[in-house]
Amino acid sequence: MKLNKKHTLSLLVGLTIGLGAASSAYSQQSLQDVMKARGLTEKDLLAAAKTYTPTGGRDEYIAFSSGGQSGQVIVYGIPSMRILKYLAVFTPEPWQGYGFDDESKAVLAQGRINGKDINFGDTHHPAFSETGGEYNGRYLFINDKANPRMAVIDLHDFETKQIVVNPFFKNEHGGAFVTPNTEYVMEAAQYAAPYESGFVPLEEFNEKYRGGVTYWKFDDKIGRLDPSQSFTFELPPYSQDLSDAGKGPSMGWGFTNSFCSERYVGGIERGRPPFEAGCSQKDTDFLHITNWKKASELVAAGKVSKVNGSYLIPIEQALSEGLLYLVPEPKSPHGVDVSPDGMHIIVSGKLDSHAWVYSWEKIQAAIANNQFEGKDPYGIPIIALKDALHTQVQVGLGPLHTQYDAKKCVVYTSIYVDSMVTKWDYCEGKVLDQLNIHYNIGHLVAMEGDSASPDGKYLVSLNKLAIDRFNPVGPLHPQNHQLIDISGDKMQLLYDMPLPLGEPHYVVAIKADKLKPAVRYQSGWDSRGDKRSDFRTRAGREKVERDGDTVHVYGTLIRSHITPEIIEVEEGDTVSLHFTNLERAEDETHGFALYGQNVNLSVEPGKTVSATFKAEKAGVYPYYCTEFCSALHLEMQGYLLVKPKGYQAKAAGIQEGQLYTQADYEKQVKTNVDTQAVIDSVVAFITSHNYKDFPEVVALVEDATDQLGFAGEAKKKAEEFAAQGDFQNATLWAGQHWQYQVKTADLGLRAKTFLEEHDAKKIK
Amino acid sequence: MKLNKKHTLSLLVGLTIGLGAASSAYSQQSLQDVMKARGLTEKDLLAAAKTYTPTGGRDEYIAFSSGGQSGQVIVYGIPSMRILKYLAVFTPEPWQGYGFDDESKAVLAQGRINGKDINFGDTHHPAFSETGGEYNGRYLFINDKANPRMAVIDLHDFETKQIVVNPFFKNEHGGAFVTPNTEYVMEAAQYAAPYESGFVPLEEFNEKYRGGVTYWKFDDKIGRLDPSQSFTFELPPYSQDLSDAGKGPSMGWGFTNSFCSERYVGGIERGRPPFEAGCSQKDTDFLHITNWKKASELVAAGKVSKVNGSYLIPIEQALSEGLLYLVPEPKSPHGVDVSPDGMHIIVSGKLDSHAWVYSWEKIQAAIANNQFEGKDPYGIPIIALKDALHTQVQVGLGPLHTQYDAKKCVVYTSIYVDSMVTKWDYCEGKVLDQLNIHYNIGHLVAMEGDSASPDGKYLVSLNKLAIDRFNPVGPLHPQNHQLIDISGDKMQLLYDMPLPLGEPHYVVAIKADKLKPAVRYQSGWDSRGDKRSDFRTRAGREKVERDGDTVHVYGTLIRSHITPEIIEVEEGDTVSLHFTNLERAEDETHGFALYGQNVNLSVEPGKTVSATFKAEKAGVYPYYCTEFCSALHLEMQGYLLVKPKGYQAKAAGIQEGQLYTQADYEKQVKTNVDTQAVIDSVVAFITSHNYKDFPEVVALVEDATDQLGFAGEAKKKAEEFAAQGDFQNATLWAGQHWQYQVKTADLGLRAKTFLEEHDAKKIK
Repeated sequence: MKLNKKHTLSLLVGLTIGLGAASSAYSQQSLQDVMKARGLTEKDLLAAAKTYTPTGGRDEYIAFSSGGQSGQVIVYGIPSMRILKYLAVFTPEPWQGYGFDDESKAVLAQGRINGKDINFGDTHHPAFSETGGEYNGRYLFINDKANPRMAVIDLHDFETKQIVVNPFFKNEHGGAFVTPNTEYVMEAAQYAAPYESGFVPLEEFNEKYRGGVTYWKFDDKIGRLDPSQSFTFELPPYSQDLSDAGKGPSMGWGFTNSFCSERYVGGIERGRPPFEAGCSQKDTDFLHITNWKKASELVAAGKVSKVNGSYLIPIEQALSEGLLYLVPEPKSPHGVDVSPDGMHIIVSGKLDSHAWVYSWEKIQAAIANNQFEGKDPYGIPIIALKDALHTQVQVGLGPLHTQYDAKKCVVYTSIYVDSMVTKWDYCEGKVLDQLNIHYNIGHLVAMEGDSASPDGKYLVSLNKLAIDRFNPVGPLHPQNHQLIDISGDKMQLLYDMPLPLGEPHYVVAIKADKLKPAVRYQSGWDSRGDKRSDFRTRAGREKVERDGDTVHVYGTLIRSHITPEIIEVEEGDTVSLHFTNLERAEDETHGFALYGQNVNLSVEPGKTVSATFKAEKAGVYPYYCTEFCSALHLEMQGYLLVKPKGYQAKAAGIQEGQLYTQADYEKQVKTNVDTQAVIDSVVAFITSHNYKDFPEVVALVEDATDQLGFAGEAKKKAEEFAAQGDFQNATLWAGQHWQYQVKTADLGLRAKTFLEEHDAKKIK
Repeated sequence: MKLNKKHTLSLLVGLTIGLGAASSAYSQQSLQDVMKARGLTEKDLLAAAKTYTPTGGRDEYIAFSSGGQSGQVIVYGIPSMRILKYLAVFTPEPWQGYGFDDESKAVLAQGRINGKDINFGDTHHPAFSETGGEYNGRYLFINDKANPRMAVIDLHDFETKQIVVNPFFKNEHGGAFVTPNTEYVMEAAQYAAPYESGFVPLEEFNEKYRGGVTYWKFDDKIGRLDPSQSFTFELPPYSQDLSDAGKGPSMGWGFTNSFCSERYVGGIERGRPPFEAGCSQKDTDFLHITNWKKASELVAAGKVSKVNGSYLIPIEQALSEGLLYLVPEPKSPHGVDVSPDGMHIIVSGKLDSHAWVYSWEKIQAAIANNQFEGKDPYGIPIIALKDALHTQVQVGLGPLHTQYDAKKCVVYTSIYVDSMVTKWDYCEGKVLDQLNIHYNIGHLVAMEGDSASPDGKYLVSLNKLAIDRFNPVGPLHPQNHQLIDISGDKMQLLYDMPLPLGEPHYVVAIKADKLKPAVRYQSGWDSRGDKRSDFRTRAGREKVERDGDTVHVYGTLIRSHITPEIIEVEEGDTVSLHFTNLERAEDETHGFALYGQNVNLSVEPGKTVSATFKAEKAGVYPYYCTEFCSALHLEMQGYLLVKPKGYQAKAAGIQEGQLYTQADYEKQVKTNVDTQAVIDSVVAFITSHNYKDFPEVVALVEDATDQLGFAGEAKKKAEEFAAQGDFQNATLWAGQHWQYQVKTADLGLRAKTFLEEHDAKKIK
């Protein structure tokens, strides 16, 4: 029954070596038995082999999906179809501390509407930053339909850095779409509304309600949108929809769909036919063609005026400068997709069964020749369909969006009503293959499928309904993303992935090796501001400072304690906590949760975050680290004491719950000596291998060295107290010495395991 | 270039039949080519076959995982390891409308602390409701560590129905654990704090700070916890940790761990050794044994007093009634797990390498014989370890939790520091197998592994760190749940699942067929209140009612329009929206988002939800359906018009953006006649099959019948207007007639596809 610490730690070496052998044991159960038991066909097994990713394996592509009204972005791997992360964008999310720490609250505050906090977003279309029409892996943009906003996510750390509010619109749908060098990010209005913020009656719909398309200027140097240099095209009160930017020969132009060019206003409750009737009555709507290149030159030349504090190009100016044209497009279109070479534009109408392929050459010629079939009610020239169309292909009922294959002329169109994907040739105008999906596909994405050089290989079908596909989880069902192999002539369905949260609309997928995310921050980093934090704190420099009624706490987090462990303030004080995570090892995140104050922080290695609140009520408020960061993470705790105003402490100090003797001290010292021997053997293993070739291990070793340094300090304290005959403090500091040793050993063991798993070489 | 609606719709039949053939095409690519290309071993392929679930396949078990500080519960399938749903519990979540509609706001408001909204939770331990020690699949309980609360999720619809706040604690960790018939749900305090809400100095820690364990009474009839009948054991200011309820011979008793029985208070910033040193100095802590059965009898007999409005059993009373005992347990224990037969209790100490197996028989005998080795400082009798222990097994460094296999005496213990699972025999006291995991396992779960009859088969290892396992996604990494096959003698690693959001602590897994979730609500259902909503509205009964400064809107949602489409209020009015989803088809959720008012609703079929806000500022506020519910979902829109106070409308009506003639009307009528023929053919297909055997199809047919009914009404209106020579309205209503037809056809097609996929039989 004796607890032997030495024995315990010596397991570090023995058990691990033993396990190497144990895990190589391999079951003799046959594949055919398993297939029979689980009802798998050979086709299923092939699909399994194409998607299954063993432990430690990597995905070839990383997909970024909008989360719909969850307000987030969903990141998953292809072909494993495992969701890697939900990125908080418009909605507060406590695991990430988003909307809880002061720094991210400031990002969300940028997105207020009329001064009001909006705690959700309806994200629709993510877009990567591009260089020369290729995804460059640096930034992701995502829009909010409900409250027209655009967000910037930095793919260096997968965090949302900026939210901008559209200065004119009250709703949008068609964002984000970037120009080939991320000069601009396009955002088009959807439901027309007055540009002014006050009331305008619907009777003035045709005159005062407006659509539009905003070109947000992106400043690549700082990775932020620049509202001061952005501009908006005033457009008629049609419901503008999706956009795409031209490239190659169509570089400098943007294409924006619309529906409800009938400008119909519903009112079923007052006897009028509903919006859906009046907005789908005409056989065609309008594709808007805008010249952003020339517009940006006008802006630069000071020829565009600001309205609502932002550059607005009125229809009249756009017409006089030749910046704006219309082409008829199929009834209630949804997607507009420019071909990789920029020569064609494919548009599908939800209520038509055809995809229409436009020729940029023809459109350009029509514009050059002033060859128009007329003007819309706002005077915008209309290019005749016959003067713009290359071909028209019958692809199925309810066609929506089109993605491009690596193979020339080959595209994939989502067919909503028929629940299928149609593969077709847009040069020759013929259908090549069709595949059933389950069910009601919206968008679809091919690998790098809207870049200048699509990769083909895989297609993901974003299905809106998943009836009967998964185990039921109540009336709100998951959606279904289906992975399809498009490497051969025939499409092959590989995998069904349920979406556990959110209603994705569009996904973009990038080759994984284009992403170079950081695994930790520089020490003391303000990640939202992208700079060293003013509140960063180094080990040993923790402090509490009062500034009037505000108490600033400059603290640190390291396994397994929070400094400070006791914070004392007075009722009515404003408390501003600032915590820096001192760790360097990958994945060694600490959290911080505080009772009763709605304070919850996520502090990744190196990060500094703050939380400011008013301590309104005297009381005892425990706090602790929320991340299981080490064996003693439960002991990583503290108390915020909010004392009544003017409270006078009694003289007595903290009363010890447990008393220790010289024998206790000596027992602890002996344990520590034994433990050191174990650490030395682990260190010997690590340093005898090429550990410096593994950045993950270097970080672990750095953290271990820190812990061992702290261990030395604790040892010294213990010895000083022992010399004074204070065996209470001597024992406790000797115990803390051991805790630091245990963490050193824990880190060392993790490093050792990593080296073994990655076949490190012995160097001496 | 002619748009032919008849042709379009006739594709309904043709294309679908064609596709059946297309999808059966099968690639000849060989399995070995794929394995070679992807670097898969035979072992990998076997693991793939054991986990891959083809489209439409079902999982055998459903796991419910805590989401840590994300405040949610995560639902996934085993063995596919696909995440099916994130359930919003303590954190607002807009996709589910949770914390946005009035009904769910009321649930969250139950969880306020000192009147303050808390927008997150730190969820730790989910637990199923039980009958006779078996999961009954009806409810799930989950706790919040940060702000001691307990939530009830109804597995009928996977929604959070109730949150209760602990009346005494300021922090907890050890909830939820249920007694064998869900009589009570256990919740133990963690960091000691005064029971009173005011300030108590740390100098009075030993006297006035307290731990405790609350037994929440569960009312099975209404599916809610009953605070008025719940009671709490006062416990010493040790940090109580996890609990488990006895069963079989130990029925009526509860077991609760603790650490920091040293009652140490840290303060590293003031020169004191930190909590981690003082809280881990002793070689043992205390297992608390409480007799809830007898306690509940005392409560029923009126012998227990209320404090803070809730029953509290003071230590003194617990002692005099023989309700409370202690047994030493290994240093800093984490898990306490009662065996399926209730005869043994396994406890592991994080800083020991042994798992300790206690014998309930021995403990019972010691209690019966008053055989104690002494008392703790609060007078609680301590049973000597030798009088309680069955055996002690060396399982590895940092052992935490234990799960039971279907095989007698076989258990699995998570080993945190060594990153492995140890399979061992607790009867014989010997290790059977060990498996490396990646990395640093916290909890683990076997199928129904803490019920009275565990199923074995699979084990999931909940790993806290995932360094090097997945493509990097920034400094905040996903965690890794590893699926392990435990059906054979040796454990086999099958699958790595990244956790995209949250830091799960514990998972419970139930046989999938025990869950019988609803796929829709009864019409007009208030799901949070579990009753018909007072605000429900039927088709055609929509209305707007003013009550003083409040405007109540009783609206409906059906594909593809919102009734009303125009809502007019005055600046300063309170607007209370109530929407009922009129659909019955599974998965046909509608959403509702409104510009600038932070209003975002999820309205599943049958549900009625409300959103109340103040229209502070005159203006135009578009709203729309956020769910891609039908081909015309973008047209499912409307306007909230907030008029300035006293605004007088001008006489002019809404000006039509597009005018229609008799020719337009006649063209539309012809289209409608053609479309009806298509519908008839689809109807003929459905009714000639045994569609009534498929509830999903019956719901689709009901919705289609509704739509066809509306179509008839629209047709009648169109004809009336035509008879009056009003071809504007005649054309629009004829268009609406067609929209209803399209939806009928869409539903019919979905029903037809479903019947084909499920091999429906021809009946005539």
